[in-house]
Amino acid sequence: MRLVIQFRNFLFIILIIQHVSFAKATGSDSIMIRKIFSYALSKGEGFQNLNELCTRIGNRLSGSPHADEAVSWARKLMESYEFDTVYLQNIMVPHWERGLTEKAYIEFPERYRNLDLHVIGIGNTIGTGPAGVQANVMEVDSFEQLDQAGYKKIHGKIVFFNQPMDPTLINTFQAYSNAASQRYHGPEFASRYGAKGVIVRSLTTRLDDVPHTGATAFMQNEHPIPAIAISTNDAEKLSAILKTGSELKIHFITSSSMKEDKPSFNVIGEIRGSEFPGQYILIGAHLDSWDVGQGAHDDGAGCVHALEALRILQCLGYKPRHSLRVVLFMNEENGLRGGKAYAGLVGENKEKHIAAIESDSGGFTPKGFTINASDVNLHNLKAFLPYFAPYGIHEFVEGEGGADISPMKKFGVPLIGFKPDSQRYFKYHHSYLDTFDKVDKRELELGSASITSLVYLIDQYGL
Amino acid sequence: MRLVIQFRNFLFIILIIQHVSFAKATGSDSIMIRKIFSYALSKGEGFQNLNELCTRIGNRLSGSPHADEAVSWARKLMESYEFDTVYLQNIMVPHWERGLTEKAYIEFPERYRNLDLHVIGIGNTIGTGPAGVQANVMEVDSFEQLDQAGYKKIHGKIVFFNQPMDPTLINTFQAYSNAASQRYHGPEFASRYGAKGVIVRSLTTRLDDVPHTGATAFMQNEHPIPAIAISTNDAEKLSAILKTGSELKIHFITSSSMKEDKPSFNVIGEIRGSEFPGQYILIGAHLDSWDVGQGAHDDGAGCVHALEALRILQCLGYKPRHSLRVVLFMNEENGLRGGKAYAGLVGENKEKHIAAIESDSGGFTPKGFTINASDVNLHNLKAFLPYFAPYGIHEFVEGEGGADISPMKKFGVPLIGFKPDSQRYFKYHHSYLDTFDKVDKRELELGSASITSLVYLIDQYGL
Repeated sequence: MRLVIQFRNFLFIILIIQHVSFAKATGSDSIMIRKIFSYALSKGEGFQNLNELCTRIGNRLSGSPHADEAVSWARKLMESYEFDTVYLQNIMVPHWERGLTEKAYIEFPERYRNLDLHVIGIGNTIGTGPAGVQANVMEVDSFEQLDQAGYKKIHGKIVFFNQPMDPTLINTFQAYSNAASQRYHGPEFASRYGAKGVIVRSLTTRLDDVPHTGATAFMQNEHPIPAIAISTNDAEKLSAILKTGSELKIHFITSSSMKEDKPSFNVIGEIRGSEFPGQYILIGAHLDSWDVGQGAHDDGAGCVHALEALRILQCLGYKPRHSLRVVLFMNEENGLRGGKAYAGLVGENKEKHIAAIESDSGGFTPKGFTINASDVNLHNLKAFLPYFAPYGIHEFVEGEGGADISPMKKFGVPLIGFKPDSQRYFKYHHSYLDTFDKVDKRELELGSASITSLVYLIDQYGL
Repeated sequence: MRLVIQFRNFLFIILIIQHVSFAKATGSDSIMIRKIFSYALSKGEGFQNLNELCTRIGNRLSGSPHADEAVSWARKLMESYEFDTVYLQNIMVPHWERGLTEKAYIEFPERYRNLDLHVIGIGNTIGTGPAGVQANVMEVDSFEQLDQAGYKKIHGKIVFFNQPMDPTLINTFQAYSNAASQRYHGPEFASRYGAKGVIVRSLTTRLDDVPHTGATAFMQNEHPIPAIAISTNDAEKLSAILKTGSELKIHFITSSSMKEDKPSFNVIGEIRGSEFPGQYILIGAHLDSWDVGQGAHDDGAGCVHALEALRILQCLGYKPRHSLRVVLFMNEENGLRGGKAYAGLVGENKEKHIAAIESDSGGFTPKGFTINASDVNLHNLKAFLPYFAPYGIHEFVEGEGGADISPMKKFGVPLIGFKPDSQRYFKYHHSYLDTFDKVDKRELELGSASITSLVYLIDQYGL
């Protein structure tokens, strides 16, 4: 009924009209995207690159010698691809070390034997000292339960956070995000009530014996307490025993410690734009990983996706209009120093980013992209969907772009996350199972092709 | 411009109007489908059933004792679920046996050592006798090349069919179907030109050392010749050596043989419809498998999908309007006797099937359904798509329903194939790699839920 078109809607319409232009270009763009997929699936190098990163270098926690090796590897690989510019951005990273000892067991009174638990220290945790922590256990599955229990019931105990990932959620990242705060904030909150230590149920979709690590907020300004994760099977077992009212204590020992910050790097490579060299399309992933497994899906897969995007376009002889920049960030896992430092530089240099895409959800079959951007950007991205449908990609939905690129939100940069199928991701995530053999070559290559195609379309039409 | 509405279009419009009724019912149907998915993901029994079928019984080629065990297992399981009716349909099946010996190697003149090949006999092949077949090799990658070579060049030789699966096709079933005729018809065609034997490049998406079997047309009325498959790495190696012009022979031995037909069974379970008990919705899969691996994705996954569809609806207290019938067919792999016999019975008894759904593409994350039906049925099925989008399912496309249900095409039954992600299927297919550990629990359960949801919607609204 209203005849007044608001400025924002007006802008919207203009942009829609502008986008009609590429609808006409469907033919040649479809052909280009077909070329990208065919190239990725027949001449992809991502799988062999990932093998080298995972198998030769291995896992690569910030501050470790392996992280340094990964930086050298990434730089050399970009140089071998003859990108226009390859350079390192200096940053300082936290340097946490797991140490050699990680052990936990249930101590029963008298006649029972101790029951060993499958355990891994949570990233950033302090150590227990050689005597370990030994205490009665208080199980909770939410912060509400923790608050209700209060100081009197928690003081001197080990708090056991036992909230499982909800198996009925189709997107396992949603289930993870609902349950992950018990690991990230649990130790901090429990320490306020006088807890001596924290045990967290591993964040995985499976019932098995594999413990999963991940970061907890490092409590420099509080009274820090040590925190470990136990496998889901052990969590079920412990919970069942506690329900019987059995007298038991848990004894755990970890020799982890946070050291002085160390110097490290973001690794950056660019292909200069022919028309708008000062405008960037960023493709990012993180080079660091946890110190177990090989960081294959998290986030080696993302690193090779990003590298492939530039390499494939280059090999197809494509001359981008905007500058394309791959950034392999350091320290996503336990500090986000790389992402923050990069955004700092973008702010200082007033670099214009027309889009930032991150791949940090694994190397599985692509389903689409999650978008954290304005309505106009979202609309324009959704208009690309028909190009992707022939490749089984149907989901351009609102959501997060990715941790490393999130600090660029304040500059209004449209943030885009690559969204592969999420069903298997949390079986492996942050555990010794996240190894190269869990990655399927074709699934990985389809991811490279999807991201490359999106970069191509954004470069052609903007957002 | 034409104002005359053809009868068919008119019918179309009527049916569209009819279907508007369920658009109004979106709320309660969406809730039911959400319940189906939640139930499958939290209380699914398909994964443990598949473990039993694969790990306790193992592979189960028609006519083998393991196939008999699988029949008993399936019947007992259906009975334990208290379906309204559980019964066996008697059929006769081919009984092919691999025998103990399978060996192939390249023989070089004089100074080189023989080179062993990774080999498996193709299903239904005859044996070579203990001396084996030894001959020069003629490589072709199409039947055109075979025909061009003709009797003179082929006579007395071993024909090596080396057409790879095209890696650039997104749907790997398409790539398989393009290349599979060299295995199915290759031996038959080569024998007409006087070939002594056939070697086929394994049909897999990977370069590796694993040979893959599968059926060849059994040549009862011709001059049959023995046929084996070699791994893709060996096919590449053999082809490279042949290109050097090197003098070589291949020597292969297989002790396979086709025996007398044996009695076997389709296993059938039903829940009676409350309104239309004489109208059936069929959910099918095949119980037999090749005699290597465990028949996990092909087609144990399909069997537990079909069983779960009935069990889940029953456990949710759903009373179907039409009769729901699960059919676990015998002998899909090397004869299709189960599918043919079942269609025979449908014809004799004039049983009305309002839809037949088959799951025979593995237990991977669902992408949609392939539909072989009339335009009206296709249209009505596509109208269900919005119910599936929240579960990441977006593809209701024209295509085949499945081998076992294909003989019902002649009765005009709408045929529907479950379509999971196809990227990993042919790594395992028909090889010793197709084992239970290759199946992901959540991916399998999402398949069960998708099929169950489609059965529910067809039962509610028809097609």
